[in-house]
Amino acid sequence: MNITKGEQIYEGKAKKVFATSDPDLVIVDYKDDATAFNGEKKGTITGKGVINNKLTNFLMKMLEEKGVPTHFIEEISDREAIVKKVTIIPLEVIVRNIAAGSFSKRFGVPEGKDLLSPTLEFSYKDDALGDPMINDYHIKALGIATDEELKTLAEMSFKVNEILKEYLLADNIILVDFKLEFGKTSSGEIVLADEISPDTCRFWDKDTREKLDKDRFRRSLGGEVEAYQEISKRVLGD
Amino acid sequence: MNITKGEQIYEGKAKKVFATSDPDLVIVDYKDDATAFNGEKKGTITGKGVINNKLTNFLMKMLEEKGVPTHFIEEISDREAIVKKVTIIPLEVIVRNIAAGSFSKRFGVPEGKDLLSPTLEFSYKDDALGDPMINDYHIKALGIATDEELKTLAEMSFKVNEILKEYLLADNIILVDFKLEFGKTSSGEIVLADEISPDTCRFWDKDTREKLDKDRFRRSLGGEVEAYQEISKRVLGD
Repeated sequence: MNITKGEQIYEGKAKKVFATSDPDLVIVDYKDDATAFNGEKKGTITGKGVINNKLTNFLMKMLEEKGVPTHFIEEISDREAIVKKVTIIPLEVIVRNIAAGSFSKRFGVPEGKDLLSPTLEFSYKDDALGDPMINDYHIKALGIATDEELKTLAEMSFKVNEILKEYLLADNIILVDFKLEFGKTSSGEIVLADEISPDTCRFWDKDTREKLDKDRFRRSLGGEVEAYQEISKRVLGD
Repeated sequence: MNITKGEQIYEGKAKKVFATSDPDLVIVDYKDDATAFNGEKKGTITGKGVINNKLTNFLMKMLEEKGVPTHFIEEISDREAIVKKVTIIPLEVIVRNIAAGSFSKRFGVPEGKDLLSPTLEFSYKDDALGDPMINDYHIKALGIATDEELKTLAEMSFKVNEILKEYLLADNIILVDFKLEFGKTSSGEIVLADEISPDTCRFWDKDTREKLDKDRFRRSLGGEVEAYQEISKRVLGD
Protein backbone atom coordinates (compact mmCIF):
# COMPACT_ATOMS: atom_id res chain seq x y z
CA MET A 1 0.00 0.00 0.00
CA ASN A 2 1.20 3.42 -0.86
CA ILE A 3 0.88 5.10 2.51
CA THR A 4 3.51 6.71 4.71
CA LYS A 5 3.94 6.44 8.47
CA GLY A 6 3.18 9.63 10.37
CA GLU A 7 3.61 10.67 13.95
CA GLN A 8 2.81 8.55 16.99
CA ILE A 9 -0.72 9.28 18.20
CA TYR A 10 -0.98 6.81 21.08
CA GLU A 11 1.19 4.55 23.20
CA GLY A 12 -0.50 1.79 25.18
CA LYS A 13 0.94 -0.93 27.39
CA ALA A 14 1.74 -3.31 24.54
CA LYS A 15 1.35 -1.28 21.35
CA LYS A 16 2.04 2.07 19.72
CA VAL A 17 -0.27 3.60 17.15
CA PHE A 18 0.92 5.91 14.35
CA ALA A 19 -0.99 8.17 12.00
CA THR A 20 -0.57 7.61 8.27
CA SER A 21 -1.01 9.65 5.12
CA ASP A 22 -4.54 8.19 4.89
CA PRO A 23 -6.81 9.72 7.56
CA ASP A 24 -8.85 6.47 7.77
CA LEU A 25 -5.83 4.24 8.42
CA VAL A 26 -3.29 3.91 11.24
CA ILE A 27 -0.24 1.73 11.83
CA VAL A 28 -0.06 -0.47 14.94
CA ASP A 29 3.41 -1.28 16.25
CA TYR A 30 3.63 -4.18 18.74
CA LYS A 31 6.09 -3.93 21.68
CA ASP A 32 7.70 -6.66 23.79
CA ASP A 33 6.56 -4.90 26.98
CA ALA A 34 4.36 -7.00 29.24
CA THR A 35 2.19 -5.67 32.03
CA ALA A 36 -0.31 -7.28 34.38
CA PHE A 37 -2.67 -6.32 37.20
CA ASN A 38 -3.58 -2.97 35.67
CA GLY A 39 0.08 -2.07 35.09
CA GLU A 40 1.35 -2.96 38.57
CA LYS A 41 3.56 -5.78 37.28
CA LYS A 42 5.92 -4.87 34.44
CA GLY A 43 8.34 -6.87 32.33
CA THR A 44 9.46 -7.88 28.88
CA ILE A 45 8.70 -11.00 26.88
CA THR A 46 11.35 -11.09 24.17
CA GLY A 47 9.85 -11.57 20.72
CA LYS A 48 6.27 -11.09 21.96
CA GLY A 49 5.62 -8.07 19.72
CA VAL A 50 6.51 -9.99 16.57
CA ILE A 51 4.41 -13.01 17.55
CA ASN A 52 1.38 -10.96 18.64
CA ASN A 53 1.47 -8.90 15.45
CA LYS A 54 1.62 -11.95 13.16
CA LEU A 55 -0.86 -13.99 15.18
CA THR A 56 -3.39 -11.16 15.41
CA ASN A 57 -3.14 -10.41 11.71
CA PHE A 58 -3.50 -14.09 10.79
CA LEU A 59 -6.51 -14.66 13.04
CA MET A 60 -8.24 -11.39 12.10
CA LYS A 61 -7.86 -12.26 8.41
CA MET A 62 -9.32 -15.69 9.08
CA LEU A 63 -12.24 -14.18 11.06
CA GLU A 64 -12.85 -11.59 8.33
CA GLU A 65 -13.11 -14.41 5.77
CA LYS A 66 -15.69 -16.09 7.97
CA GLY A 67 -17.85 -12.97 8.14
CA VAL A 68 -16.57 -11.07 11.20
CA PRO A 69 -15.71 -7.47 10.26
CA THR A 70 -12.31 -6.44 11.68
CA HIS A 71 -10.05 -3.42 11.58
CA PHE A 72 -7.25 -5.38 9.88
CA ILE A 73 -5.90 -4.20 6.52
CA GLU A 74 -2.33 -5.42 5.95
CA GLU A 75 0.82 -6.62 7.71
CA ILE A 76 3.72 -4.36 6.75
CA SER A 77 6.58 -5.62 8.92
CA ASP A 78 7.40 -8.08 11.70
CA ARG A 79 5.91 -5.74 14.27
CA GLU A 80 3.64 -3.49 12.24
CA ALA A 81 0.23 -3.70 10.65
CA ILE A 82 -2.01 -1.22 8.88
CA VAL A 83 -5.49 -1.17 10.40
CA LYS A 84 -8.59 0.97 9.99
CA LYS A 85 -8.65 4.00 12.26
CA VAL A 86 -11.47 3.44 14.75
CA THR A 87 -12.91 5.05 17.83
CA ILE A 88 -12.56 2.34 20.45
CA ILE A 89 -15.81 1.53 22.29
CA PRO A 90 -14.78 1.78 25.98
CA LEU A 91 -15.90 -1.76 26.78
CA GLU A 92 -13.78 -4.88 26.98
CA VAL A 93 -15.75 -7.98 26.04
CA ILE A 94 -14.64 -11.10 27.89
CA VAL A 95 -15.85 -14.50 26.67
CA ARG A 96 -15.24 -17.61 28.77
CA ASN A 97 -15.55 -21.33 28.04
CA ILE A 98 -13.76 -22.64 31.14
CA ALA A 99 -13.47 -21.07 34.60
CA ALA A 100 -10.09 -19.36 35.15
CA GLY A 101 -8.44 -16.21 36.49
CA SER A 102 -10.66 -13.45 37.88
CA PHE A 103 -13.81 -15.48 37.19
CA SER A 104 -12.57 -18.35 39.39
CA LYS A 105 -11.52 -15.96 42.13
CA ARG A 106 -14.69 -13.86 41.98
CA PHE A 107 -17.15 -16.75 42.12
CA GLY A 108 -15.11 -19.36 44.01
CA VAL A 109 -15.08 -21.76 41.06
CA PRO A 110 -11.99 -23.98 40.62
CA GLU A 111 -9.83 -23.03 37.65
CA GLY A 112 -10.39 -25.54 34.86
CA LYS A 113 -14.07 -26.22 35.53
CA ASP A 114 -16.09 -26.39 32.32
CA LEU A 115 -18.90 -23.84 32.20
CA LEU A 116 -22.42 -25.07 31.35
CA SER A 117 -22.52 -22.46 28.57
CA PRO A 118 -20.06 -19.81 27.32
CA THR A 119 -20.29 -16.55 29.26
CA LEU A 120 -19.85 -12.96 28.18
CA GLU A 121 -19.13 -9.98 30.39
CA PHE A 122 -18.29 -6.36 29.79
CA SER A 123 -15.57 -4.39 31.56
CA TYR A 124 -15.72 -0.63 31.50
CA LYS A 125 -12.34 0.46 30.08
CA ASP A 126 -11.03 2.86 32.71
CA ASP A 127 -7.58 2.30 34.21
CA ALA A 128 -8.23 4.58 37.19
CA LEU A 129 -11.32 2.49 38.10
CA GLY A 130 -9.52 -0.81 37.41
CA ASP A 131 -11.70 -1.76 34.40
CA PRO A 132 -14.73 -2.75 36.52
CA MET A 133 -17.26 -5.32 35.35
CA ILE A 134 -20.38 -3.56 34.07
CA ASN A 135 -23.70 -4.90 32.82
CA ASP A 136 -26.08 -3.98 30.00
CA TYR A 137 -28.36 -1.92 32.26
CA HIS A 138 -25.42 0.10 33.61
CA ILE A 139 -24.04 0.69 30.11
CA LYS A 140 -27.38 2.02 28.92
CA ALA A 141 -28.00 4.09 32.06
CA LEU A 142 -24.61 5.77 31.71
CA GLY A 143 -24.99 6.32 27.95
CA ILE A 144 -21.86 4.29 27.08
CA ALA A 145 -23.54 2.25 24.32
CA THR A 146 -27.01 1.57 22.98
CA ASP A 147 -29.04 -1.63 23.18
CA GLU A 148 -28.42 -2.28 19.50
CA GLU A 149 -24.67 -1.79 19.85
CA LEU A 150 -24.56 -4.17 22.82
CA LYS A 151 -26.45 -6.77 20.83
CA THR A 152 -23.92 -6.42 18.00
CA LEU A 153 -20.96 -6.75 20.38
CA ALA A 154 -22.42 -9.88 22.00
CA GLU A 155 -23.30 -11.54 18.69
CA MET A 156 -19.89 -10.80 17.18
CA SER A 157 -18.05 -11.96 20.31
CA PHE A 158 -19.88 -15.29 20.53
CA LYS A 159 -19.29 -15.81 16.81
CA VAL A 160 -15.55 -15.14 17.31
CA ASN A 161 -15.61 -17.66 20.14
CA GLU A 162 -17.17 -20.40 18.03
CA ILE A 163 -14.78 -19.83 15.12
CA LEU A 164 -11.61 -19.50 17.22
CA LYS A 165 -12.45 -22.38 19.56
CA GLU A 166 -12.86 -24.79 16.67
CA TYR A 167 -9.88 -23.42 14.76
CA LEU A 168 -7.48 -23.66 17.69
CA LEU A 169 -8.63 -27.12 18.71
CA ALA A 170 -7.21 -28.40 15.43
CA ASP A 171 -3.84 -27.13 16.73
CA ASN A 172 -4.42 -28.96 20.03
CA ILE A 173 -5.12 -25.66 21.81
CA ILE A 174 -8.03 -25.10 24.20
CA LEU A 175 -9.47 -21.58 24.09
CA VAL A 176 -10.23 -21.03 27.80
CA ASP A 177 -11.27 -17.36 27.62
CA PHE A 178 -10.36 -14.14 25.84
CA LYS A 179 -10.85 -10.39 25.77
CA LEU A 180 -11.97 -8.47 22.71
CA GLU A 181 -12.20 -4.78 21.93
CA PHE A 182 -14.30 -3.18 19.25
CA GLY A 183 -14.17 0.13 17.46
CA LYS A 184 -16.29 2.27 15.19
CA THR A 185 -14.92 3.26 11.79
CA SER A 186 -15.44 6.70 10.28
CA SER A 187 -18.51 5.29 8.50
CA GLY A 188 -19.96 4.08 11.84
CA GLU A 189 -19.39 0.36 11.30
CA ILE A 190 -18.52 -1.68 14.41
CA VAL A 191 -15.43 -3.81 13.77
CA LEU A 192 -13.24 -6.09 15.84
CA ALA A 193 -10.13 -4.14 16.88
CA ASP A 194 -7.14 -4.49 19.25
CA GLU A 195 -5.44 -7.90 19.15
CA ILE A 196 -5.94 -11.66 19.49
CA SER A 197 -2.84 -13.13 21.11
CA PRO A 198 -1.53 -14.89 24.23
CA ASP A 199 -1.69 -11.42 25.85
CA THR A 200 -5.49 -11.32 25.48
CA CYS A 201 -6.49 -15.01 25.41
CA ARG A 202 -5.98 -17.95 27.73
CA PHE A 203 -4.63 -20.84 25.66
CA TRP A 204 -4.08 -24.27 27.24
CA ASP A 205 -2.49 -27.31 25.66
CA LYS A 206 -5.32 -29.74 25.02
CA ASP A 207 -3.54 -32.79 26.42
CA THR A 208 -1.45 -31.44 29.31
CA ARG A 209 -3.54 -28.28 30.04
CA GLU A 210 -0.20 -26.45 30.23
CA LYS A 211 -0.68 -22.66 30.10
CA LEU A 212 0.53 -21.15 26.82
CA ASP A 213 -0.32 -17.50 27.47
CA LYS A 214 0.33 -14.41 29.58
CA ASP A 215 -0.63 -16.25 32.78
CA ARG A 216 2.96 -17.56 32.74
CA PHE A 217 4.08 -13.93 33.20
CA ARG A 218 1.20 -12.86 35.50
CA ARG A 219 1.83 -15.77 37.84
CA SER A 220 5.65 -15.84 37.44
CA LEU A 221 5.58 -19.42 36.15
CA GLY A 222 8.53 -18.89 33.80
CA GLY A 223 8.75 -20.11 30.19
CA GLU A 224 6.68 -17.24 28.78
CA VAL A 225 8.95 -16.76 25.73
CA GLU A 226 8.68 -20.47 24.92
CA ALA A 227 4.90 -20.44 25.45
CA TYR A 228 4.40 -17.58 22.98
CA GLN A 229 6.72 -19.33 20.51
CA GLU A 230 4.76 -22.58 20.89
CA ILE A 231 1.46 -20.84 20.07
CA SER A 232 3.10 -19.15 17.09
CA LYS A 233 4.46 -22.48 15.87
CA ARG A 234 1.14 -24.27 16.21
CA VAL A 235 -1.05 -21.58 14.67
CA LEU A 236 1.29 -19.96 12.12
CA GLY A 237 3.61 -22.88 11.53
CA ASP A 238 6.67 -20.83 12.48
CA MET B 1 -53.56 -17.54 63.04
CA ASN B 2 -53.47 -20.66 65.06
CA ILE B 3 -49.82 -21.54 64.77
CA THR B 4 -47.15 -21.90 67.44
CA LYS B 5 -43.55 -20.66 67.34
CA GLY B 6 -40.98 -23.45 67.13
CA GLU B 7 -37.21 -23.47 67.37
CA GLN B 8 -34.85 -20.97 65.77
CA ILE B 9 -33.70 -22.27 62.40
CA TYR B 10 -31.54 -19.36 61.27
CA GLU B 11 -29.95 -16.20 62.58
CA GLY B 12 -28.80 -13.58 60.09
CA LYS B 13 -27.27 -10.16 60.61
CA ALA B 14 -30.58 -8.37 61.16
CA LYS B 15 -33.18 -11.11 61.61
CA LYS B 16 -33.86 -14.46 63.24
CA VAL B 17 -36.11 -17.06 61.66
CA PHE B 18 -38.16 -19.57 63.66
CA ALA B 19 -39.97 -22.73 62.59
CA THR B 20 -43.70 -22.95 63.28
CA SER B 21 -46.26 -25.69 63.70
CA ASP B 22 -47.05 -25.26 59.98
CA PRO B 23 -44.20 -26.64 57.83
CA ASP B 24 -44.92 -24.07 55.10
CA LEU B 25 -44.68 -21.06 57.42
CA VAL B 26 -41.91 -19.46 59.48
CA ILE B 27 -41.71 -16.51 61.86
CA VAL B 28 -39.25 -13.69 61.15
CA ASP B 29 -37.99 -11.76 64.19
CA TYR B 30 -36.30 -8.40 63.45
CA LYS B 31 -33.28 -7.34 65.55
CA ASP B 32 -31.82 -3.89 66.23
CA ASP B 33 -28.37 -5.10 65.16
CA ALA B 34 -26.83 -3.15 62.31
CA THR B 35 -23.89 -4.31 60.19
CA ALA B 36 -22.17 -2.89 57.14
CA PHE B 37 -19.33 -3.73 54.75
CA ASN B 38 -20.01 -7.47 54.81
CA GLY B 39 -20.16 -7.52 58.63
CA GLU B 40 -16.95 -5.56 59.24
CA LYS B 41 -18.79 -2.66 60.91
CA LYS B 42 -21.17 -3.58 63.72
CA GLY B 43 -23.57 -1.56 65.83
CA THR B 44 -27.11 -1.12 67.08
CA ILE B 45 -29.86 1.16 65.86
CA THR B 46 -32.38 1.28 68.71
CA GLY B 47 -35.90 0.54 67.54
CA LYS B 48 -34.78 -0.51 64.04
CA GLY B 49 -36.22 -4.01 64.37
CA VAL B 50 -39.72 -2.72 65.14
CA ILE B 51 -39.63 -0.17 62.30
CA ASN B 52 -38.24 -2.60 59.72
CA ASN B 53 -40.79 -5.26 60.66
CA LYS B 54 -43.76 -2.88 60.35
CA LEU B 55 -42.45 -1.11 57.25
CA THR B 56 -41.65 -4.37 55.43
CA ASN B 57 -45.04 -5.85 56.27
CA PHE B 58 -46.87 -2.70 55.19
CA LEU B 59 -44.99 -2.40 51.89
CA MET B 60 -45.19 -6.13 51.08
CA LYS B 61 -48.95 -6.06 51.67
CA MET B 62 -49.25 -3.05 49.38
CA LEU B 63 -47.12 -4.74 46.69
CA GLU B 64 -49.13 -7.96 47.00
CA GLU B 65 -52.32 -5.98 46.39
CA LYS B 66 -50.75 -4.52 43.26
CA GLY B 67 -49.93 -7.96 41.89
CA VAL B 68 -46.43 -8.71 43.19
CA PRO B 69 -46.37 -12.11 44.96
CA THR B 70 -44.56 -11.88 48.31
CA HIS B 71 -43.78 -14.21 51.23
CA PHE B 72 -45.77 -12.03 53.68
CA ILE B 73 -48.66 -13.56 55.62
CA GLU B 74 -49.30 -11.66 58.86
CA GLU B 75 -47.73 -9.34 61.43
CA ILE B 76 -47.95 -10.95 64.87
CA SER B 77 -46.00 -8.55 67.09
CA ASP B 78 -43.89 -5.40 66.98
CA ARG B 79 -40.89 -7.37 65.80
CA GLU B 80 -42.40 -10.53 64.36
CA ALA B 81 -44.18 -11.55 61.19
CA ILE B 82 -45.39 -14.86 59.80
CA VAL B 83 -44.11 -15.43 56.28
CA LYS B 84 -44.13 -18.31 53.81
CA LYS B 85 -41.20 -20.66 54.20
CA VAL B 86 -39.08 -20.28 51.07
CA THR B 87 -35.78 -21.44 49.69
CA ILE B 88 -33.91 -18.21 49.09
CA ILE B 89 -32.51 -17.84 45.56
CA PRO B 90 -28.83 -16.97 46.18
CA LEU B 91 -29.00 -13.74 44.21
CA GLU B 92 -29.47 -10.23 45.50
CA VAL B 93 -31.26 -8.03 43.00
CA ILE B 94 -30.19 -4.39 43.14
CA VAL B 95 -32.29 -1.78 41.33
CA ARG B 96 -31.01 1.79 40.97
CA ASN B 97 -32.66 5.04 39.91
CA ILE B 98 -29.90 7.43 40.98
CA ALA B 99 -26.14 6.81 41.24
CA ALA B 100 -24.99 6.17 44.83
CA GLY B 101 -22.82 3.93 46.98
CA SER B 102 -20.92 1.09 45.32
CA PHE B 103 -22.27 2.07 41.89
CA SER B 104 -20.79 5.58 42.18
CA LYS B 105 -17.49 4.22 43.42
CA ARG B 106 -17.28 1.41 40.86
CA PHE B 107 -18.00 3.54 37.81
CA GLY B 108 -16.72 6.92 38.95
CA VAL B 109 -20.16 8.53 38.77
CA PRO B 110 -20.97 11.30 41.29
CA GLU B 111 -23.48 10.27 43.94
CA GLY B 112 -26.84 11.84 43.14
CA LYS B 113 -26.54 11.72 39.35
CA ASP B 114 -29.82 10.63 37.73
CA LEU B 115 -29.45 7.50 35.62
CA LEU B 116 -30.78 7.60 32.03
CA SER B 117 -32.82 4.48 32.86
CA PRO B 118 -33.23 2.31 35.98
CA THR B 119 -30.54 -0.36 36.28
CA LEU B 120 -30.68 -3.87 37.65
CA GLU B 121 -27.76 -5.99 38.77
CA PHE B 122 -27.38 -9.33 40.49
CA SER B 123 -25.04 -10.08 43.37
CA TYR B 124 -24.16 -13.68 44.09
CA LYS B 125 -25.07 -14.18 47.77
CA ASP B 126 -21.85 -15.51 49.29
CA ASP B 127 -20.36 -13.75 52.32
CA ALA B 128 -16.96 -15.40 51.87
CA LEU B 129 -16.76 -14.01 48.32
CA GLY B 130 -18.15 -10.60 49.37
CA ASP B 131 -21.43 -10.96 47.39
CA PRO B 132 -19.78 -10.28 44.00
CA MET B 133 -21.69 -8.78 41.09
CA ILE B 134 -22.66 -11.51 38.62
CA ASN B 135 -24.38 -11.37 35.24
CA ASP B 136 -27.02 -13.47 33.48
CA TYR B 137 -24.45 -15.47 31.49
CA HIS B 138 -22.47 -16.32 34.64
CA ILE B 139 -25.62 -17.32 36.52
CA LYS B 140 -26.63 -19.72 33.74
CA ALA B 141 -23.11 -21.08 33.24
CA LEU B 142 -22.85 -21.90 36.95
CA GLY B 143 -26.36 -23.37 37.13
CA ILE B 144 -27.53 -20.87 39.79
CA ALA B 145 -30.80 -20.01 38.02
CA THR B 146 -32.47 -20.55 34.66
CA ASP B 147 -33.17 -18.00 31.93
CA GLU B 148 -36.86 -18.09 32.82
CA GLU B 149 -36.21 -17.50 36.53
CA LEU B 150 -33.91 -14.56 35.74
CA LYS B 151 -36.60 -13.06 33.54
CA THR B 152 -39.11 -13.40 36.38
CA LEU B 153 -36.72 -11.79 38.89
CA ALA B 154 -36.03 -8.84 36.57
CA GLU B 155 -39.68 -8.26 35.73
CA MET B 156 -40.77 -8.44 39.37
CA SER B 157 -37.94 -6.16 40.51
CA PHE B 158 -38.65 -3.45 37.96
CA LYS B 159 -42.35 -3.67 38.85
CA VAL B 160 -41.50 -3.24 42.55
CA ASN B 161 -39.39 -0.23 41.58
CA GLU B 162 -42.20 1.46 39.69
CA ILE B 163 -44.74 0.87 42.46
CA LEU B 164 -42.44 1.84 45.36
CA LYS B 165 -40.95 4.86 43.63
CA GLU B 166 -44.37 6.37 43.00
CA TYR B 167 -45.73 5.40 46.42
CA LEU B 168 -42.81 6.90 48.34
CA LEU B 169 -42.73 10.08 46.32
CA ALA B 170 -46.16 10.90 47.79
CA ASP B 171 -44.40 10.84 51.18
CA ASN B 172 -41.69 13.16 49.82
CA ILE B 173 -39.18 10.30 49.70
CA ILE B 174 -36.89 9.59 46.74
CA LEU B 175 -36.20 5.90 46.17
CA VAL B 176 -32.53 6.04 45.15
CA ASP B 177 -31.84 2.30 45.00
CA PHE B 178 -32.71 -0.93 46.81
CA LYS B 179 -31.84 -4.58 47.21
CA LEU B 180 -34.39 -7.37 46.92
CA GLU B 181 -34.23 -11.08 47.65
CA PHE B 182 -36.54 -13.73 46.28
CA GLY B 183 -37.45 -17.22 47.39
CA LYS B 184 -39.20 -20.29 46.09
CA THR B 185 -42.18 -21.64 48.03
CA SER B 186 -42.79 -25.37 48.49
CA SER B 187 -45.04 -25.22 45.41
CA GLY B 188 -42.21 -23.67 43.35
CA GLU B 189 -43.63 -20.15 43.10
CA ILE B 190 -41.09 -17.31 43.10
CA VAL B 191 -42.08 -14.68 45.68
CA LEU B 192 -40.50 -11.51 47.02
CA ALA B 193 -38.85 -12.33 50.38
CA ASP B 194 -36.48 -10.70 52.89
CA GLU B 195 -37.34 -7.09 53.77
CA ILE B 196 -37.97 -3.59 52.39
CA SER B 197 -36.60 -1.06 54.85
CA PRO B 198 -33.96 1.63 55.36
CA ASP B 199 -31.55 -1.30 55.81
CA THR B 200 -32.09 -2.43 52.22
CA CYS B 201 -33.14 0.77 50.41
CA ARG B 202 -31.59 4.19 49.95
CA PHE B 203 -34.24 6.77 50.83
CA TRP B 204 -33.55 10.50 50.40
CA ASP B 205 -35.74 13.39 51.42
CA LYS B 206 -37.13 14.82 48.20
CA ASP B 207 -36.43 18.46 49.08
CA THR B 208 -33.19 18.37 51.07
CA ARG B 209 -31.81 15.05 49.69
CA GLU B 210 -30.98 14.20 53.31
CA LYS B 211 -30.17 10.50 53.72
CA LEU B 212 -32.92 8.63 55.62
CA ASP B 213 -31.42 5.12 55.55
CA LYS B 214 -28.56 2.88 56.65
CA ASP B 215 -25.98 5.09 54.94
CA ARG B 216 -26.18 7.23 58.13
CA PHE B 217 -24.76 4.21 59.98
CA ARG B 218 -22.43 3.01 57.20
CA ARG B 219 -20.86 6.45 56.88
CA SER B 220 -21.06 7.36 60.58
CA LEU B 221 -23.20 10.43 59.85
CA GLY B 222 -25.17 10.12 63.08
CA GLY B 223 -28.95 10.49 63.42
CA GLU B 224 -29.71 6.95 62.26
CA VAL B 225 -32.42 6.37 64.90
CA GLU B 226 -34.17 9.61 63.88
CA ALA B 227 -33.83 8.74 60.17
CA TYR B 228 -35.54 5.37 60.62
CA GLN B 229 -38.24 7.03 62.74
CA GLU B 230 -38.77 9.68 60.06
CA ILE B 231 -39.31 7.03 57.37
CA SER B 232 -41.69 5.16 59.69
CA LYS B 233 -43.61 8.36 60.36
CA ARG B 234 -43.93 9.30 56.70
CA VAL B 235 -44.86 5.85 55.39
CA LEU B 236 -46.78 4.34 58.31
CA GLY B 237 -47.96 7.52 59.96
CA ASP B 238 -46.36 6.57 63.28
